[in-house]
Amino acid sequence: MDVMRAGDRNCLIDVTGLRAGQAVLEGPGALSGTTVVLAPPGGATGGADVRGAAPGTRETDLLSPFTTVDRVHALVFSGGSAYGLDAASGVMARCERDGEGFAVPGGVVPIVPAAVLFDLGRGGDFAARPGAAQGAAAYDAASGRPVERGVAGAGTGAVAGGLKGGVGTASVVLDAGYTVSALVVVNAVGSGVDPTNGELLGARYGLPGEFDDLPAPSAAAVSALREAAASHGGALTAGTATSLMLVATDATLDKAGCGRMATMAHDGLARSIAPVHTVMDGDAAFALATGARPAPDLAGTFALHTAAADVVARAVVNALLAAEPAGRWPSYRSVLAGVGR
Amino acid sequence: MDVMRAGDRNCLIDVTGLRAGQAVLEGPGALSGTTVVLAPPGGATGGADVRGAAPGTRETDLLSPFTTVDRVHALVFSGGSAYGLDAASGVMARCERDGEGFAVPGGVVPIVPAAVLFDLGRGGDFAARPGAAQGAAAYDAASGRPVERGVAGAGTGAVAGGLKGGVGTASVVLDAGYTVSALVVVNAVGSGVDPTNGELLGARYGLPGEFDDLPAPSAAAVSALREAAASHGGALTAGTATSLMLVATDATLDKAGCGRMATMAHDGLARSIAPVHTVMDGDAAFALATGARPAPDLAGTFALHTAAADVVARAVVNALLAAEPAGRWPSYRSVLAGVGR
Repeated sequence: MDVMRAGDRNCLIDVTGLRAGQAVLEGPGALSGTTVVLAPPGGATGGADVRGAAPGTRETDLLSPFTTVDRVHALVFSGGSAYGLDAASGVMARCERDGEGFAVPGGVVPIVPAAVLFDLGRGGDFAARPGAAQGAAAYDAASGRPVERGVAGAGTGAVAGGLKGGVGTASVVLDAGYTVSALVVVNAVGSGVDPTNGELLGARYGLPGEFDDLPAPSAAAVSALREAAASHGGALTAGTATSLMLVATDATLDKAGCGRMATMAHDGLARSIAPVHTVMDGDAAFALATGARPAPDLAGTFALHTAAADVVARAVVNALLAAEPAGRWPSYRSVLAGVGR
Repeated sequence: MDVMRAGDRNCLIDVTGLRAGQAVLEGPGALSGTTVVLAPPGGATGGADVRGAAPGTRETDLLSPFTTVDRVHALVFSGGSAYGLDAASGVMARCERDGEGFAVPGGVVPIVPAAVLFDLGRGGDFAARPGAAQGAAAYDAASGRPVERGVAGAGTGAVAGGLKGGVGTASVVLDAGYTVSALVVVNAVGSGVDPTNGELLGARYGLPGEFDDLPAPSAAAVSALREAAASHGGALTAGTATSLMLVATDATLDKAGCGRMATMAHDGLARSIAPVHTVMDGDAAFALATGARPAPDLAGTFALHTAAADVVARAVVNALLAAEPAGRWPSYRSVLAGVGR
C-alpha cells in the first residue's frame, strides 16, 4: 500500500492547473453562494456519479462514457436548490468570452456541469438564491490559491446534522506521484459526528497524525452534539439537503475512469456522514482528471480509487472543523467550546 | 429517530416469509458454495444496485424500475466467479417444478437474480466451482430457520483483507414496526479491520450494547491483523474479490424503492470494509420487499433506508466474527486468539 502525504496546500488546487473561485450571495435574508472550479485551458476529462435521491444537476448526462463530449471546462456547485442551477449560466458566459468550450462552427459551447444543494430560506428570504451573477462572480474570483473552507461559496448556507456545514478540501500525494484532491460541500440530513463519542466520523481516515490534535469531547459536549443532531430531525422534508463532491487527479483517466473515481467519492461521504444518500439528500460526486501524468496501471488505479474515498472523508472533516456558526446553526467547534472540552 | 432492536433471530429470515438455504461444494480442492434466498410464494418486489467494478450477475437488468417484471422468486449468491452463475439454473429448475415464476402461456418463468463472488482456486482446484447442482441443493436446504454464518454457502471460500470472510446476517425492528434484515457475503480486497486499533470497522454501527463484549485488541493483535491485511495485497488482480448483499423488509416498496434500499446497503459496506467498490471488487446489493406491511411515509422511508445501511454494517461484523479459519486464511478471532488479547 502507498504511504501517503498531503499535497502542499492540502487542497483541491494541489492538482496542478485547477483553479477555484467562490462567491457569497449578498443582501438581507441571504445565506447562500456559489463555488466554481475551472479546468486547465482546453478542459479536463470528467465523470460523475449521482447517488442521492433528490439531486439537482445539469450537464451530467454528457459525462456518461457512452456520450460524445469528453472535456469539461468548469464545474459549478451552488446553493439555491434547482434555482441555483442558473449559476452555471454565468460561468458559461465567462467561458465563452474566454474562448473555453467545445469547438463548433461559429464558436464554442462551454461544458459546465453543475449541481446544487438545498439551502432555501436559511438566511430568512426564500427568494434569495444564487443565479448567473454569482456564477460569474465566482468565476472572476477563481485562482490557484487555496480554497477558503467552511462558510464560503456554495457552503455558505450549508448545514449538516444540526451543525453548520460548509466547504472542505484536502489532498494526498501517492507514492507513485499522483495527486488526488477533493472539494466537498457538506450539507446533509445526516451528521458528521459519531453520536456515541462526539468525534468526527471521518477523522479515522486522516493521514497519520492529521487529526490527532482534536481533543476528545467531554460528556457534556457529546450530549450537546446529540441535541444539535436531534434538532435537525425536524427537517425531514424531501429534497432539503445534498452534499456535493469533486475529486480530482493529475492522472490520465478516461470518462469511465473518472466516473469510477466519483463512485469511490461516495464511499468517503458514507464514512464521514451518517446517514447519506437519503430521500432528502441529492448527493452528487464529480471527478476531473487533468492528464498531466500518465494513465495508472492496475495497482495505481486501485491506489487512486482508495485515495479518492479517503480524501473525501478528510475534506468532510475539514469542512466541519472550518465552519463557523451562521444563521441559527452552531458549528462543531462552537458546540464543543460552549460546553467546555 | 427510531430506537431500534434486533429481530428475534437477528437474521435475514426475521422478515416473515423469507427462507434461506446453503450448500457447500464437496470434494478435494473445493472451497466454495452457494446461498439461496426464497421469496414468499408468489414472489417479492426486488431491486438492485451493482456498484463494484468487476461484477458477475444475471437477471439484474429486469430489476430496473423501467422494466416489466416486478416479482422476484429467488435470489442466488454463489462462489465460482462467473462460472458460479450456473447455480441459478438449478434454482430455476426447482422453482419451475414448484410452480413459482412469472406466469406465461404454458408455464412459468422463475425470476432468479444472481450474483457471484470470486473464490476460484482457493481450495486448490481452480475447476472446483458451484453449478446447477449446488443451486438445487441450496434450494432443497432452504427453510425459515436462522442462516448459518461464517464459512457457509456462498461464503465458504470468501476472504476479506487477508482474513477469512463469509456469510453474515442481522436484522432490526423499527419503532414503526417494520423489520429490515440483511444477508451479506464478505469477500473483499479491503479489510473489515481498522488498522489503527484492530477493531472491526462496522462495530460502531451496532445496536446499543451489541458489540460491547468485544475486547480491545492488544498491540500484538493489531500488528498481526495488519500483517494479515498486507499479505492480501498480493491479490491485486482484477476481479478477484466481490462482496454480496441482500437487504429485505416487510414494508411495501416498489421496484425503485427496493433499488434505493440496495443503494443504501452499499453505504453499510463502505462503513464496514475499506476499501470497497474497487477495480477488483464486483460488489452488488439486492433488496426484497415482501409487502406484508403498508408502504412507509417519508419519515418511514428515511428510517428504512438508514436501517438498511446499518444492518449491512452489522451483518458484515457478524460475518467476520463467525468466520473460522479455512484454507490458508486465519480468521479475525483466530488471529486475536493466536497473539492473546
